[in-house]
Amino acid sequence: MKQADVVVIGGSAAGIPAAITSRRHYPDKSVLLVRKEEQVQIPCGIPYIYGTVNSPENNLIPDGVLTNNGIELLVDEAKAIDRENRKVLTSSGEKIVYDKLILATGSSPLELPIPGLDKENVFTIMKDAPYLQKLLDAVNKAKDIVILGGGFIGVEFADECKKNRDVNVTIVELLPHCLMLAFEEDLCVEAEEILKERGIDLITGVKLEEVVGDQKISGVKVSDGREIKADMLIVGVGVKPNIGMAEDAGLEVDRGGIVVDSTLRTSDENIFACGDCTSKKSFFTGQPSGLKLASIATMEARIAGANLFGKRRENPGTLGVFSTAIGDMTFGMAGLSEKLAKESGYDVVTGQAEAPNRHPGGMPGMAKMKVKLVFNKKTGELIGGQVRGGPSAGELINTISACIQKKMTADDIATFQLGTHPAVTASPIAYQLVNAAEMAIKDMRC
Amino acid sequence: MKQADVVVIGGSAAGIPAAITSRRHYPDKSVLLVRKEEQVQIPCGIPYIYGTVNSPENNLIPDGVLTNNGIELLVDEAKAIDRENRKVLTSSGEKIVYDKLILATGSSPLELPIPGLDKENVFTIMKDAPYLQKLLDAVNKAKDIVILGGGFIGVEFADECKKNRDVNVTIVELLPHCLMLAFEEDLCVEAEEILKERGIDLITGVKLEEVVGDQKISGVKVSDGREIKADMLIVGVGVKPNIGMAEDAGLEVDRGGIVVDSTLRTSDENIFACGDCTSKKSFFTGQPSGLKLASIATMEARIAGANLFGKRRENPGTLGVFSTAIGDMTFGMAGLSEKLAKESGYDVVTGQAEAPNRHPGGMPGMAKMKVKLVFNKKTGELIGGQVRGGPSAGELINTISACIQKKMTADDIATFQLGTHPAVTASPIAYQLVNAAEMAIKDMRC
Repeated sequence: MKQADVVVIGGSAAGIPAAITSRRHYPDKSVLLVRKEEQVQIPCGIPYIYGTVNSPENNLIPDGVLTNNGIELLVDEAKAIDRENRKVLTSSGEKIVYDKLILATGSSPLELPIPGLDKENVFTIMKDAPYLQKLLDAVNKAKDIVILGGGFIGVEFADECKKNRDVNVTIVELLPHCLMLAFEEDLCVEAEEILKERGIDLITGVKLEEVVGDQKISGVKVSDGREIKADMLIVGVGVKPNIGMAEDAGLEVDRGGIVVDSTLRTSDENIFACGDCTSKKSFFTGQPSGLKLASIATMEARIAGANLFGKRRENPGTLGVFSTAIGDMTFGMAGLSEKLAKESGYDVVTGQAEAPNRHPGGMPGMAKMKVKLVFNKKTGELIGGQVRGGPSAGELINTISACIQKKMTADDIATFQLGTHPAVTASPIAYQLVNAAEMAIKDMRC
Repeated sequence: MKQADVVVIGGSAAGIPAAITSRRHYPDKSVLLVRKEEQVQIPCGIPYIYGTVNSPENNLIPDGVLTNNGIELLVDEAKAIDRENRKVLTSSGEKIVYDKLILATGSSPLELPIPGLDKENVFTIMKDAPYLQKLLDAVNKAKDIVILGGGFIGVEFADECKKNRDVNVTIVELLPHCLMLAFEEDLCVEAEEILKERGIDLITGVKLEEVVGDQKISGVKVSDGREIKADMLIVGVGVKPNIGMAEDAGLEVDRGGIVVDSTLRTSDENIFACGDCTSKKSFFTGQPSGLKLASIATMEARIAGANLFGKRRENPGTLGVFSTAIGDMTFGMAGLSEKLAKESGYDVVTGQAEAPNRHPGGMPGMAKMKVKLVFNKKTGELIGGQVRGGPSAGELINTISACIQKKMTADDIATFQLGTHPAVTASPIAYQLVNAAEMAIKDMRC
């Protein structure tokens, strides 16, 4: 029998910051984190095992982040919650008494109704090191890799598998373009061009209908009738929340996951939940949001951990901020795309600006950086933005996120006080964020 | 005799965006820009002529930014304003009739009362190409360069002059450390370490008392009695606003420059002013601010240009956002340092976080990024921040600026919705901005 004031189930992007936040906000409370994995993978780093860091061992979150913060770690699998007695039961037979419980049980790959997915050399993206090592061994032997899904995971896996290997890589995507759930079409097309330049084959607008082969995969059939040769398939098409234990314990759940209020509390006042396992609402519309991202998980975790023994923080809803890198190009998106904003009923005005991210353009590391902003025409407030450019686009999209969260208007952004420097940003005259806002203003005043 | 609805005097970081903004906001008005330079240098790019882009010709702002926006350009020197008849008189004898006038006359190097500054091979930082070419020729021949002033300009010049040259470079700085007016002491010391590693000599805490030599400089005497060998001196110690013409025309001026209201209007209702030539107030205290930066100039220009024919925007005061790069390291600062905040009467709480700017740390391009945040303890609002890290620190400092402008609290920032990616940012768990806010919160609640 174990006991802790706060018990956290799950040791990844939600569980770790939930535990740390609990300790920071309530330093006199004991915190125990239970997870089933011996070692924890950096979830977003998983694709980069396959061409850049070259081993699951190089993609670990060190346990020091827990122990250095005074958090006890138990490697065991939580199997059930006894809510009445405030106990967590584990597969090894351990019982852990809690005062407050945080569920950070994450998500698992979607199971697809495609015949043949059980064949040898068909992989999904699991988060445990031994599985990812097997996947790496298979990639190293493969000649023809098919990747199902042209979202972030699919595109990143494709790019990585192709690096330094003599292998054919083909992405099969149901939608007309890769990355279409994240970016506006122009950026999707740009990303596709880079993928093609890097030798990756794209088959979009088709369904993967069957995995063929005997015991082992030999190819895939797609909905336009073609059969594509494949000695390996990697399936990266989305996740479902891990809610079995919560459901069994009688907690309220819906299609999106465990139901939580704006403080991240579940239907049990002593149980909180955060990360991929929770049901989410949009920052903009309050409607259900299907987004599951590590950065959303950490944000929710920092709210849940702070609220355990008194309400201190509130979840404003999921804004959605993404970035990815393909080749030397970084792509970022925050909030609503123009298309999604229109579908959500907004009257929108957009502005766009492109300029070198150095000044003068001859400075080393120059890349053309493009920013597009989407404003609510009625209020003038920023509701979305996207960036394409060099690596610093990854921070610029967070500036845009800050502007969205604080409901900055086009005039606010156009007169934004910024720092610029020849070696690291655009010039103040050409600064893309500000000029994109300026370009929107003309249409806004009509 | 010429005529335009809007006449802008000055063609650099204030004049250009002032003219463009006038055109964008009032597309039916004609805009004429008068400047004295044949070609315009990117002001912040000037140091990079000396080691990276290698010619003033490679550091020009193209005139296309004016002509593409329908702005007429006149290369001539404005000499006087006839306010009664709304006319600008130029040195070539031209008379330009205006409806609204924008003064963007910039600043000039401070004149120092140091004996010997008139000797050959003593340079200040002027913004015209022929002068900068002469400076380049002198740098290419020099053996012992002394740079007076360890601010941004001095440090950047030192780093550039040293690149690919067999030359001794020494910075002489009055304050105990370089960059001390911009950054907190820890970052100043880090920057100094990098400068020293790159072979630059630093002499701090001393005054330059005399330039010695016959016709040409042969050395400098400093206040601790030493004489430093020098065949060249570059003086980069600050600027004074160019207000002569405004003063002659009877416009109100003070020590900081031309006096303007929050709409950037001068004491004449038909004359606006922006950039280095104006007197500025602090965003935080409303007190006079001595900051003169290109990015402040463009911000003011976008306000002035929008307000010409009706009030549309207001200047919230100067926040102060800087960045610089020394070697591979980027340094950024926004708002008040801890020291300055305390001197301004704030009760402050600070938080700090350092982490790799990639995840896992083995990803290419990794640099340790450090963020320090300064909060007003009473309100919980962010009032300052500094960053040290890779090139994306240049964008991250702008995220911090957005947080300051919108008065975000430590809790707002701790639950900030951010995008992260292995190849371009820290992990969401380690994200420095968020964790620095979390570290401050503990002290804030005591």
